[in-house]
Amino acid sequence: MAAASPLPSINSALTRSSAKLSVAPPLSLSTASSASSSVGRPHLYPSSISSLSSGRIAALAPISARNPSRIPAVVDEVREMADSRVPTVVDVDLGSRSYPIYIGSGLLDEPDLLQRHVHGKSVLVVTNTTIAPLYLDKVIKALTYQNPKVTVESVILPDGEKYKNMETLMQVFDKAIECRMDRRCTFVALGGGVIGDMCGFAAASYLRGVNFIQIPTTLMAQVDSSVGGKTGVNHPLGKNMIGAFYQPQCVLVDTDTLNTLPERELASGIAEVVKYGLIRDAQFFEWQEKNMQSLLARDPSALAYAIKRSCENKAEVVSLDEKESGMRATLNLGHTFGHAIETAFGYGQWLHGEAVAAGTVMAVDMSHRLGWIDDTIVKRVFNILQQAKLPTQPPEMMTVEKFKSVMAVDKKVADGLLRLILLKGPLGCCVFTGEYDRKALDETLHAFCKN
Amino acid sequence: MAAASPLPSINSALTRSSAKLSVAPPLSLSTASSASSSVGRPHLYPSSISSLSSGRIAALAPISARNPSRIPAVVDEVREMADSRVPTVVDVDLGSRSYPIYIGSGLLDEPDLLQRHVHGKSVLVVTNTTIAPLYLDKVIKALTYQNPKVTVESVILPDGEKYKNMETLMQVFDKAIECRMDRRCTFVALGGGVIGDMCGFAAASYLRGVNFIQIPTTLMAQVDSSVGGKTGVNHPLGKNMIGAFYQPQCVLVDTDTLNTLPERELASGIAEVVKYGLIRDAQFFEWQEKNMQSLLARDPSALAYAIKRSCENKAEVVSLDEKESGMRATLNLGHTFGHAIETAFGYGQWLHGEAVAAGTVMAVDMSHRLGWIDDTIVKRVFNILQQAKLPTQPPEMMTVEKFKSVMAVDKKVADGLLRLILLKGPLGCCVFTGEYDRKALDETLHAFCKN
Ligand SMILES: NC(=O)c1ccc[n+]([C@@H]2O[C@H](COP(=O)([O-])OP(=O)(O)OC[C@H]3O[C@@H](n4cnc5c(N)ncnc54)[C@H](O)[C@@H]3O)[C@@H](O)[C@H]2O)c1
Ligand SMILES: NC(=O)c1ccc[n+]([C@@H]2O[C@H](COP(=O)([O-])OP(=O)(O)OC[C@H]3O[C@@H](n4cnc5c(N)ncnc54)[C@H](O)[C@@H]3O)[C@@H](O)[C@H]2O)c1
Ligand SMILES: [Zn+2]
Ligand SMILES: [Zn+2]
Repeated sequence: MAAASPLPSINSALTRSSAKLSVAPPLSLSTASSASSSVGRPHLYPSSISSLSSGRIAALAPISARNPSRIPAVVDEVREMADSRVPTVVDVDLGSRSYPIYIGSGLLDEPDLLQRHVHGKSVLVVTNTTIAPLYLDKVIKALTYQNPKVTVESVILPDGEKYKNMETLMQVFDKAIECRMDRRCTFVALGGGVIGDMCGFAAASYLRGVNFIQIPTTLMAQVDSSVGGKTGVNHPLGKNMIGAFYQPQCVLVDTDTLNTLPERELASGIAEVVKYGLIRDAQFFEWQEKNMQSLLARDPSALAYAIKRSCENKAEVVSLDEKESGMRATLNLGHTFGHAIETAFGYGQWLHGEAVAAGTVMAVDMSHRLGWIDDTIVKRVFNILQQAKLPTQPPEMMTVEKFKSVMAVDKKVADGLLRLILLKGPLGCCVFTGEYDRKALDETLHAFCKN
Repeated sequence: MAAASPLPSINSALTRSSAKLSVAPPLSLSTASSASSSVGRPHLYPSSISSLSSGRIAALAPISARNPSRIPAVVDEVREMADSRVPTVVDVDLGSRSYPIYIGSGLLDEPDLLQRHVHGKSVLVVTNTTIAPLYLDKVIKALTYQNPKVTVESVILPDGEKYKNMETLMQVFDKAIECRMDRRCTFVALGGGVIGDMCGFAAASYLRGVNFIQIPTTLMAQVDSSVGGKTGVNHPLGKNMIGAFYQPQCVLVDTDTLNTLPERELASGIAEVVKYGLIRDAQFFEWQEKNMQSLLARDPSALAYAIKRSCENKAEVVSLDEKESGMRATLNLGHTFGHAIETAFGYGQWLHGEAVAAGTVMAVDMSHRLGWIDDTIVKRVFNILQQAKLPTQPPEMMTVEKFKSVMAVDKKVADGLLRLILLKGPLGCCVFTGEYDRKALDETLHAFCKN
């Protein structure tokens, strides 16, 4: 942990990476070639965080045998990710429903990015009471700048997971109908995952589907919920029980919005970032182990890199399995336990990522009990989550019974059999399976619960 | 109107017709070849309605120049549509989302038809207080007969268009979640269009989409709403404003269920049957002109034929334009005026088909004012709807203003321009357009309203 290490991704900041594994590898984390080409470039890390980088170049390790298709990304681009206003673009490849994710600092000051994806004359921005005073004007300005023909309306919902329900959703429909929005209108989600999920479901259902743009403003939403088209609301008896698969026209990630985000919320998003490393991207996990403090310190280029690489991972999985027939389920590492915590503890007590963090520790513990991973992985997961100040065990009130009763209605139950995402093999490998020793699940629950 | 005319379709009763125009023509109404092959076959029409058939074979007229692709259907099948238990099958061709429509008498007594489309272990039948006492037991029997591994639950909603809203929809979700239904469950809609639309939207949204089967029990649902995947609920400010495009696994039409249907409801369905003739199937319209009394008398083979041919027409349109980018909109002939009536008059005052009938007369009147059709068509439309005892003008309370204000929020408004489905050219031809003289619309509204 001494000298600042060059961020391997910098050289490929402008690469437009496609999430289509079969054509081009999505991960632009450059390997040997970019490591050498980055020699002599300015280190983007401010000295305040340089002490946190190790100088080792583990993240530049050779392509793992498991991912032979991960060839080095194009490295002849010279602009850097820290260069604001020039977005990094990650493409989500879903045939006719493909769309770009723009990532960068200051993107809300680039009207063209949004305007090119608005086709009709009316826009409805859906946001909440916390985010509206911070960013609504900026977004309205971006939508209307030199664009007199567009009319922008907004609906400001109450803030919180507990309002992610059908009743709140009706406020969006009420507004859209009052404003006589027609099929060519565009709904814009401005906010975290709650707003994104609700606005997306509203867009999917209003007149059986209207255009939709995501402007995620939490790390959670930027690395996870805004990508992939899962939308929905909660039911008193279960999270995200009602919803749709619905893809946006584009996702616009302005990393500057993270500057106003509370610390706990930032950590919550990091839980999902860690997840991508664990389920499919060992190099990314290793990068995180070295750069966690930079992320917590909101270093813009560290954040932009983590967001880009997370989106690439998610986009790749989603493009291979949009409707979650199998592989996509792996994105739910830690979520089965996590959802049980959120449901039994009450929505809004713990943040989603906090519950996922504790759930991830449980899933990893169970994987180890099954003999599927060795204990160094267990320790590394525990350490990285603790470093991120995330919980590593469920809240005290969670009993074995509570876990079991909520997990029985999990969406991943098929014909009565609970399938889980568990780690298996070396770092970065996981399985989605119902074939595991029930005893290991029981033991894990008992190990983490008082009774 | 003297001797019974052979039903031209009889010979192709078992033809599995595909709604893929580009491959095989969907309309199995046989032309010259089937006319000759039907010579010598028994007339299926009971003598009680024979006086209504003309003996002329207008329905067997040569393929119209407009539809050169309509070649005669396969006619070597010998079983007849009136032979119960052997379903006619119309295929809705939507690639991976294709599904069959089974049509016939006594099909609810054929457990296999339903069971082959249920894949998981749990089924939720969604029906209402009127239909449950009539058919719920029968459906549960069909689902469970010699099939011990399936569990069938049901939810019985209040009856009526006024309950077609989000609140009632929540009862379906409540039940499904209480019963811990998982992703592999199947929702079955048992009822008319209201139940079908609601259950379909519930299936589309529950866990972001579960299997879905339609058992339509009104003529309206059998010829229209159960086919094509439009689902949804009403908003206090507009009909079907919230919903999804969602296709079922199959549609099962047991024509026997029509025996308990009130007369007004039967006529309401006929309004949609007439629609198919007007927008794209002149031969079918001519058949209806001759066989309206048989339909009203619920002659089983006349009904089965009208249902089959309606489904073929709808299936063909839907397979060419699933998401209503253009052609599918033509299925809304009379519906823009009709929806205005339903909305302003209050849901449930007039039946949907009654409002559509009055709306159709208005659309036809306007088409004539534009000089797009000649007045014999106007008269024939008026006559056939009157014969079916359907309204031919809006209710007295409808003012020009009421029409205009509701039509302004119609789903077919694009960027402020109201597009309408209007007849143009010979019988069976229509257009979907925003390019018409506004004066003609005004004149039509004034001609049909007191003020
Ligand atoms: N659709 C998916 O694939 C998916 C994936 C993961 C999570 N989710 C969902 O996302 C939700 C969690 O999302 P979240 O963690 O973003 O929570 P959130 O949307 O509730 O946002 C967290 C808090 O931060 C505030 N906030 C948002 N942006 C801010 C900013 N820039 N500055 C200051 N405050 C800001 C919000 O108002 C809120 O109070 C859950 O409902 C979860 O189910 C969905
Ligand atoms: N999804 C579509 O493409 C589409 C197309 C057309 C209409 N619709 C919708 O369909 C609805 C109208 O459908 P509907 O006309 O079937 O009305 P409906 O569902 O209200 O049924 C009419 C009445 O008949 C009763 N009923 C149903 N089957 C019966 C039977 N076999 N015996 C006795 N009574 C029976 C019902 O309980 C109800 O009281 C409207 O909401 C309309 O918007 C949808
Ligand atoms: Zn998550
Ligand atoms: Zn209709």
